[in-house]
Amino acid sequence: MSPGPGLHRTVLPKSFFASGANCGVRRYRPDLGIITSEKEAVTVATYTTNECQAAPLIYCRELLPSRRIRAVVTNSGQANAATGELGLQRNFAMAEAAARSLGVETSQVLTASTGVIGHQIEIDKIVQAMPELIARSTNVAENFALSILTTDLVPKAVTTVVRLSQGEVRITGICKGSGMIHPNMATMLGYLLTDLQIEPELAQSLLREAVDQSFNMISVDGDCSTNDITFFMANGASGVALKDEEDYCKFKDALFEVARFLAQAIAADGEGATKLIEVTIRGAPDLELARRAARGVTLSPLIKSAIHGANPNWGRILARLGAEKVPASCLQKTVISLQSVAVFADGSPLEFDRRCLHDQLKQSKVQIDIDLASGKEEAVAWGCDLSKQYIDINTEYS
Amino acid sequence: MSPGPGLHRTVLPKSFFASGANCGVRRYRPDLGIITSEKEAVTVATYTTNECQAAPLIYCRELLPSRRIRAVVTNSGQANAATGELGLQRNFAMAEAAARSLGVETSQVLTASTGVIGHQIEIDKIVQAMPELIARSTNVAENFALSILTTDLVPKAVTTVVRLSQGEVRITGICKGSGMIHPNMATMLGYLLTDLQIEPELAQSLLREAVDQSFNMISVDGDCSTNDITFFMANGASGVALKDEEDYCKFKDALFEVARFLAQAIAADGEGATKLIEVTIRGAPDLELARRAARGVTLSPLIKSAIHGANPNWGRILARLGAEKVPASCLQKTVISLQSVAVFADGSPLEFDRRCLHDQLKQSKVQIDIDLASGKEEAVAWGCDLSKQYIDINTEYS
Repeated sequence: MSPGPGLHRTVLPKSFFASGANCGVRRYRPDLGIITSEKEAVTVATYTTNECQAAPLIYCRELLPSRRIRAVVTNSGQANAATGELGLQRNFAMAEAAARSLGVETSQVLTASTGVIGHQIEIDKIVQAMPELIARSTNVAENFALSILTTDLVPKAVTTVVRLSQGEVRITGICKGSGMIHPNMATMLGYLLTDLQIEPELAQSLLREAVDQSFNMISVDGDCSTNDITFFMANGASGVALKDEEDYCKFKDALFEVARFLAQAIAADGEGATKLIEVTIRGAPDLELARRAARGVTLSPLIKSAIHGANPNWGRILARLGAEKVPASCLQKTVISLQSVAVFADGSPLEFDRRCLHDQLKQSKVQIDIDLASGKEEAVAWGCDLSKQYIDINTEYS
Repeated sequence: MSPGPGLHRTVLPKSFFASGANCGVRRYRPDLGIITSEKEAVTVATYTTNECQAAPLIYCRELLPSRRIRAVVTNSGQANAATGELGLQRNFAMAEAAARSLGVETSQVLTASTGVIGHQIEIDKIVQAMPELIARSTNVAENFALSILTTDLVPKAVTTVVRLSQGEVRITGICKGSGMIHPNMATMLGYLLTDLQIEPELAQSLLREAVDQSFNMISVDGDCSTNDITFFMANGASGVALKDEEDYCKFKDALFEVARFLAQAIAADGEGATKLIEVTIRGAPDLELARRAARGVTLSPLIKSAIHGANPNWGRILARLGAEKVPASCLQKTVISLQSVAVFADGSPLEFDRRCLHDQLKQSKVQIDIDLASGKEEAVAWGCDLSKQYIDINTEYS
C-alpha cells in the first residue's frame, strides 16, 4: 500500500468525487472540502466519546446510519464546538448550502469540522464558496485531504483495490490528525469510502472493529477531542457485493489495512513528532489489559521524551506498565525489547550495548516489544515522540 | 506558613534529627539522607499504586504500621526499582548499615529510594558513608531535604506549630518531586513528622485523608512512579495527645495544611515548570467526578502548553472536561473562569478582553475555576505548565 502525498494520485472509488478550496477563513491554506457520491451511499460513523460534542457531530448522529447520503462537507480552522445554539444553526446552514449546490436534500449531506474550539464558524464565507468548491471536484483525494489539515504536515490518503468473486472494488481512506489525539473513538477526522454494495448493519460492525484496531490505538498527546468522527461510505457503484465468507474476509482485511495505514500516518505526523513509536504487547492474559498497556506506553511523556533523545531508558516503560495495572506477577516474567534488543527480563536489568542501542533508537520508527508471558492476547498501539516543537505548536495555537 | 528554603531554617519536632550528605553516587549533589527519632515513633505510610514496586516499598510494607520506628534512610540517584532479588538484598543492607550505626534493630529502620529505574544501588558507597551521615545530624530539615532531590530545583520543607489543650506540638513536612508525578498515592517521597502522641490507627486514617487532598491531587506529567511513599511519623516527644474533638480538628487542619503546602511546592517545581496551575471544580454532582475533572485539566498537555504561552485557549479545558466524562448536561451549565475572568457560560463563548487576560496569564500562579452548577461537591488539583525544558530534562536523563 502506498501513501497518498507527493506525485502519487489517490483515485477514489467509482462515482465518488472530492474537492478542497480556500474559502477565506484561513489565510494561506485550503479550509473547506467536500466528498460527494453520484449515487446515494450507505453511510455509518463512529464518534468521539467526549461528552462535549461539536455541532457537526450532534447533526450527523441524527442522520446516521443512512442509505441515502450524497456528501460530507468539512471545514477546517474552526471546530464549531462549544458554540451553543448558533453553532448548530451555522452547521445546518453549511449542510444546506452544499445540498442546494448539489441539488439534493439537506438530510443527504453530512458535516465535519476541525480547528479551534469556541469560535463561531464564518458561515458566510463557507456558503459563498460552496458552488465553486463543488465545481472543482475531481476523482482524486488530494485536494480534499489537504483542505482538512490543521497542524498536520502531510495530507493522508490511500487507495487499495480488492478483488472479490464478482469483480473489483476500491477502498479509499483519508484522514487528518494531529493534536488532541487520543481516540476513544478516534480523535481525528476519518473518511473510508468504497464502491462496494453493503448493508448498513454490516458496514457499522466492520467500521467499529476497524476503528478499534487502528484509530483507537493511536495517541499523540492523550487529549480526546470534541470533534472526532470517522465516516464509512459505501455507494455500491461497482455493482459488487460480498457473496461469501472469503469475500468478507478479503474486504475486511483490506479495510483494516487502510485504517491501520492511516492511523500510523497520524501518529507519525503527530504535533512535533520526529519518530513513529510502535508498541506491541504480547502474552497478555486478557485483551483489555493488552490494549490498555500498549496505549499507556504510547501516552507517557517520559517515555516519549526518552525516545526523542534515543535514550534507552526502559525503566520508564516498566513503570508505566505497572501504573497501567499490569499485575506484579506478570511484570516478574515480562521481557522488554527496544528495536529487538532485550533490556529487561526475569525482574532484573539485562546487560546490553547502550551506545549501539542509542544509535538504533535514532531511526524514524522505534519498536517497543513487550512480552508479558502470561497469556495469548496481543495488541499494537502507535504514538510518537515528544519534541520541543510540540510545545511551540501548542503554546501559540489559537 | 512559610517555606523551608533560603535563609529560613525548618526546625524539626522534638527528638527528631535529620542529615544529608554526598556518599559518592552522584557527582555534585547530596545523595543520601536520614531522619532519626530519639524515641520510638508510631509510623504509618501510603504507597504508590503502581504494580511495579521498588525494593524499599516492598521492605517498608512488611514493617508498617509500627510503633517502634527509629529512622528512615533515603538514597537519591538510583531508584532500586526493577532490580530483582539483588535489589532487595541491597535495600536490606542499607537499612542494616543505618541500624548498626544507630545501635537499633534493622526492623526499626525504614528505607526509600528515588532516581533512575533499573540500576543496582551502589551499596558499598552508601554503607561506608552511613556513620558520618548520622554524625552530621541536626534538628533542622534542610540538609535532608536537599539530599533527596532528583530533578527538583528547590528543597521542600515546612514546619508548623499547633497549640492543643495540653500544650504545643510541631509538624514538619519534607518532600521531593518532580518528574513521574501523578500520584495515586503520591508519585513522590513525603515525610510528615510530629511529636504528638497518637495511635497508629488514627495516624493512618489522618495520613490517608491528608494525602488524598494534597499529593493525590497533583500532577506533573501523568506518569505514576514505582517508588512513591509518604511516611507519617509521630514520636510523642511533646508529651501531648489529642484530648478532644477540638484538638483533633486543630491537628488535622494543620497536618492537611502542611500536606497541601508541600503538594503545591511539588507542582510549582515540576520538571521544566514556570507556573503553578490551580484547578478548582465547584458544583459537581459527586466528589469522584470533581476530583477526576480537576486532575484531568492539570494533566492535559494541550492546556499545559497553552498556559505556558499565556494563551487563553479555554476550548481545550472544556474538551478535557468532556473527555473526563463530565456529562453534557453539566457542560451546558458550566462556567469556566481563568484568573477570575469568565470565558465560557451557557454553552457558548463569552466576550472578554483577550490581551488583558493574556497578560494576567503571565503570572506565576494561574487559577482555573470551573463551576459545573450541578451539585455541591468540590475538588482542587495542582499542576504546572509544559515547557521545552521538560523535554530537555527527560530527553537526556538516565
